[in-house]
Amino acid sequence: MKIAFDCQGGDHAPQAIVEGALKAKEALGIEPIFFGDAARLKAMEGVDETHIVHCASAITQEDSPALAIRKKKNSAIVMGLGALKEGKVDGMISAGSTGALLAGGMFIVKRKEGVERAALPVYLEISGQKKLILDVGANMDASPEMLLSFAEMGQSYLRDVEGVDAPTVALLNVGTEEGKGNQQVKAAYELMADGIEHFTGNIEARDVLFNNVNVIVTDGFAGNILLKTIEGTVGYIQHGVASAAKGSEKAGELKMLAKSILGDLDYSRYGGVPLLGLEKPVFKAHGASNAEAVLSATEALVRMVRGDEYREGAGQ
Amino acid sequence: MKIAFDCQGGDHAPQAIVEGALKAKEALGIEPIFFGDAARLKAMEGVDETHIVHCASAITQEDSPALAIRKKKNSAIVMGLGALKEGKVDGMISAGSTGALLAGGMFIVKRKEGVERAALPVYLEISGQKKLILDVGANMDASPEMLLSFAEMGQSYLRDVEGVDAPTVALLNVGTEEGKGNQQVKAAYELMADGIEHFTGNIEARDVLFNNVNVIVTDGFAGNILLKTIEGTVGYIQHGVASAAKGSEKAGELKMLAKSILGDLDYSRYGGVPLLGLEKPVFKAHGASNAEAVLSATEALVRMVRGDEYREGAGQ
Repeated sequence: MKIAFDCQGGDHAPQAIVEGALKAKEALGIEPIFFGDAARLKAMEGVDETHIVHCASAITQEDSPALAIRKKKNSAIVMGLGALKEGKVDGMISAGSTGALLAGGMFIVKRKEGVERAALPVYLEISGQKKLILDVGANMDASPEMLLSFAEMGQSYLRDVEGVDAPTVALLNVGTEEGKGNQQVKAAYELMADGIEHFTGNIEARDVLFNNVNVIVTDGFAGNILLKTIEGTVGYIQHGVASAAKGSEKAGELKMLAKSILGDLDYSRYGGVPLLGLEKPVFKAHGASNAEAVLSATEALVRMVRGDEYREGAGQ
Repeated sequence: MKIAFDCQGGDHAPQAIVEGALKAKEALGIEPIFFGDAARLKAMEGVDETHIVHCASAITQEDSPALAIRKKKNSAIVMGLGALKEGKVDGMISAGSTGALLAGGMFIVKRKEGVERAALPVYLEISGQKKLILDVGANMDASPEMLLSFAEMGQSYLRDVEGVDAPTVALLNVGTEEGKGNQQVKAAYELMADGIEHFTGNIEARDVLFNNVNVIVTDGFAGNILLKTIEGTVGYIQHGVASAAKGSEKAGELKMLAKSILGDLDYSRYGGVPLLGLEKPVFKAHGASNAEAVLSATEALVRMVRGDEYREGAGQ
């Protein structure tokens, strides 16, 4: 299995990307293809020269995503996604600009048939239960039909990639009763009640961490509010614990306890998130990824590639 | 100052409401008017018979709000709001159906001039800093113009009622840069940048508990997601602390610590929330209010009445 690594994107590129790719080669038996500055990559230990694809320009966080995809044809994101489209690699990982990766995914790799827009989920395991919340940032204005398709993408990912049997789906809303919410979610509820197997109805934000539903569907605006509110509340509490621990004899003990309670909510430990709805597997690693995180991301990507192969083998 | 108390609404009505009203009479010098079942109220200690207004029907949580306002003309909510409209009382408190109180506020008390829709805020003090987030549930689909008017209502409340000098305002969004978000918030940003003094721009959900902005503007859908995600995350952590404390010698110590860290996030301690945008002061006490909570709610309502008097006296 050949995997394209964007060696230009991320806070610790190219070192962390290359080290992670080499760890993945060792641990998972994949063949890494390094997209980036050839001179720099050649100088790095363990990099096979024949597996380098030179990229003369680089997309940065400051670039406008759609424009960057059109203008920077020889960047790692554009060239890596191009190689994926042409079947020269089986999957692509980038810790670079999420917007550019999404735009490139849509324009170069293309969407799966019937999918209007790609989505960005967040993956969590809470008390061992696998959860996917989507969209959390790719689609600010989502039609009810798009929400329906997010439900389908989420189920398919959890089933084919994470091995969840019959994943349940709920719609993020302000109350659990049918008829709650704004125009968008009311219409989406109707579509999902008709079209989604294992649809359990609405879910309130306060139940997201407790309820045992697998896929939580929302648009990118509300999903982002949900996710960042969890992050902000956890941050607030960590800050409180740090203050309480200051000068206390039990500082270490307190921090350990906080870590054990808050651990499941730290979604950065899953390495990143898949881009859902594309023809081929693309994985967004966290910008701050170190080599270990790149390895985690590669593990998830390998499961995505295998999930696709399985589906194709089954004639779906 | 005469205050109408809905003695029909809330989990502990009429006892907690009446006890709270009597505490407020003692502590604040207000004159409570009791709206409810006369026979039952007469039998209660400390209730002045001449201050009872008999209500033959009652609005419940199961009633459709708009329908209940039209059909249950002799309920405490409808009669109390009617007395407020006519100037027989100076303010109204209810721990009953939020929807019915809002609908009644709009239909009976009416909105302030220039206000399209009333809003439901949540009030918090974090590290001593006063914050109002609105709307958190009254308006699911809010136009950019409505968001602008929420900003104005929020500023006016914090300034006139809570004594905040020059309250700052931010717009809840998925990023801090201008141009972020969905169509609704992009348009609202433009309006607020032009029309709101002390507008500080967008605020991300993760910064709501840290940032020192006073008024956070959002529609009722996203506001509800924000609020209930804080609640859910706090609940998740309390559950974790309770598990860690189980059988531990330090159980009491741990719970005290959690309480001290989480205390500021418990918005139930403020007694309830004002309905903003109405011609006259209406306060929604929490459904679970005990007598102490009713007293807190009355304190806030008295500040609202005085704020209005002050504005009118100043010729505004």
